[in-house]
Amino acid sequence: MALRRAGQDVLLLDRHAEHARTAAALGAGRAGDWADLAGCDHVVLAVPPTSVGAVLRAVQQLTLDATISDVASTKANVLVEVEAHALDATRFCGGHPIAGRERGGPTAAVPELFDESVWVVTPSEQTDDLATADVVELARRCGARPLEMTATAHDSALAVVSHAAQVVASTLAAQLDAADQAARVLAGSGFRDTTRLADSDAGLWADIAVANRTALAEALRRIRDDLDRVQGGLRAGDVTALTEVMARGRAARASLPGKAGRAAPTWSRVGVVLQDQPGELARLFGVAGRVGVNIEDVAIDHAVDHPVGLVALDVRPEDAERLTEAVGAAGWHAIGLTPRRL
Amino acid sequence: MALRRAGQDVLLLDRHAEHARTAAALGAGRAGDWADLAGCDHVVLAVPPTSVGAVLRAVQQLTLDATISDVASTKANVLVEVEAHALDATRFCGGHPIAGRERGGPTAAVPELFDESVWVVTPSEQTDDLATADVVELARRCGARPLEMTATAHDSALAVVSHAAQVVASTLAAQLDAADQAARVLAGSGFRDTTRLADSDAGLWADIAVANRTALAEALRRIRDDLDRVQGGLRAGDVTALTEVMARGRAARASLPGKAGRAAPTWSRVGVVLQDQPGELARLFGVAGRVGVNIEDVAIDHAVDHPVGLVALDVRPEDAERLTEAVGAAGWHAIGLTPRRL
Repeated sequence: MALRRAGQDVLLLDRHAEHARTAAALGAGRAGDWADLAGCDHVVLAVPPTSVGAVLRAVQQLTLDATISDVASTKANVLVEVEAHALDATRFCGGHPIAGRERGGPTAAVPELFDESVWVVTPSEQTDDLATADVVELARRCGARPLEMTATAHDSALAVVSHAAQVVASTLAAQLDAADQAARVLAGSGFRDTTRLADSDAGLWADIAVANRTALAEALRRIRDDLDRVQGGLRAGDVTALTEVMARGRAARASLPGKAGRAAPTWSRVGVVLQDQPGELARLFGVAGRVGVNIEDVAIDHAVDHPVGLVALDVRPEDAERLTEAVGAAGWHAIGLTPRRL
Repeated sequence: MALRRAGQDVLLLDRHAEHARTAAALGAGRAGDWADLAGCDHVVLAVPPTSVGAVLRAVQQLTLDATISDVASTKANVLVEVEAHALDATRFCGGHPIAGRERGGPTAAVPELFDESVWVVTPSEQTDDLATADVVELARRCGARPLEMTATAHDSALAVVSHAAQVVASTLAAQLDAADQAARVLAGSGFRDTTRLADSDAGLWADIAVANRTALAEALRRIRDDLDRVQGGLRAGDVTALTEVMARGRAARASLPGKAGRAAPTWSRVGVVLQDQPGELARLFGVAGRVGVNIEDVAIDHAVDHPVGLVALDVRPEDAERLTEAVGAAGWHAIGLTPRRL
């Protein structure tokens, strides 16, 4: 759908032919079969990592003059598959669009999915420049920002920011099973934020963890070592390790880029106490819109567990006073909050 | 302000007299001095944990007929202070309202702060029934739900759901300092959620961690042991430990109560792609309000880093179709999303 939006001719193949037909009906291209591949100059394999090699070989047996890429979420293991199966490894270049939906299948597709997201491009030492350029161009036509790196660098980065985050979130949540029921009642928004990823599907994650096990185990070892130092220090009443880890964590968070990879802006946060009933949020956003204030982010604060909700609105600093006045004039109690980074 | 709202007479003392006067001007009661305490039947000590004992002793030297309670965020260490300093430990009962603001000082106060939040009440073995009943009643008059437990149970629970969550979030974020710049670009909403607490102030947390060091070190040890098993398994290509920890984490998350301690409802989630400009959110919430749909929660999805935002609206399941239709009729693209728990 993203390529069609860019005017690209797209051929759709799926091992379930009805999925390709559904996708075609939704405007993603035309459904076809293997024989139709003859006219293609770029084949994108959206198959499990462990199948990339075999499907690549099957495609190359058609002797197309085509670049072949994939979209799997781990890259070094795909390279091993490709090296074992490819008839011509120079024409393969790996890719990983960092964008996804909480549902799969053609009906979950939206053409805007890749807009401004990062599409990691991972050429191997065998990959020729044309194949790399083709994947970079594919990413651009889909609306994404191509980012070239090695398969190993990709896997190490994802091990920290995605796979280890998943394991840490699950491990923290898992401690509740040994805790009193009281601990559950006392869990506020901090615990809920930190453990949110623990809702993920364990089967899917087992596959990803195994596919990236070397980099993930290394990231987990470093985390465990830091926790060990913090814990050992605390038992001795020494907070040096805790303070050091917190300072590193805070600095690392501050170094995260903002929306779409741009430098993070510092929003001002305005809190408003609302009754939890239909129309209240609409009225609030209406007030903001009428004074020309764009809401950059919004959160409903569950920490304080009000039936009335504390709604936090992030706005440009120069808009905060105008919004606060407008909110007050509309009869609500506006509160200046310390903005937290997203 | 919460007690004044309930018609209670409130005397305010602060070591900075101007803070008490500011609070009085904001409607929190009347500013006074130590001599005025004579008429009080309940004294709430909002002082650092390590000062509770000394201030309790100073208050009891006035020979009031009063219950005395505190609001410190760790309870066992306060009890040690009280046992060392109290003239009459039977009249002291600890408390911890689980509610707070991102700013301190009188100007940050709102009377709704405690509404429907939990106020932990921690009588010691010395505390008499009257003192416990007084703190339960104090919590109720402030709009909170009193929850009685031992100081030790409180500290163990907070060690997991608050203090360990803080350490884990900081430790995960800290791993970025050894990662490539690429890792920062690839950090999505999952990493941002999991590390959000890492923005907290290290100095404040060092005090809390030391105050609750035994329970916190124990929680961290269990987390480290789980991470060790997951990591060891992964190195051997074995996901048994990972799968087990993820299953425990998922079950624990599912056991968290919903808003205001009630059973968590299962919302339906409707996604809408909006342009990032003033008025769009207002128009969306206006549409929801006009068809009588209450928005239970809202999130703007930064994961896909669109300049157009994917706004996720959580609504009652019976409202989802009506909202989807109304959103579509208003010209947006509505998408069914898998709701994630808050």
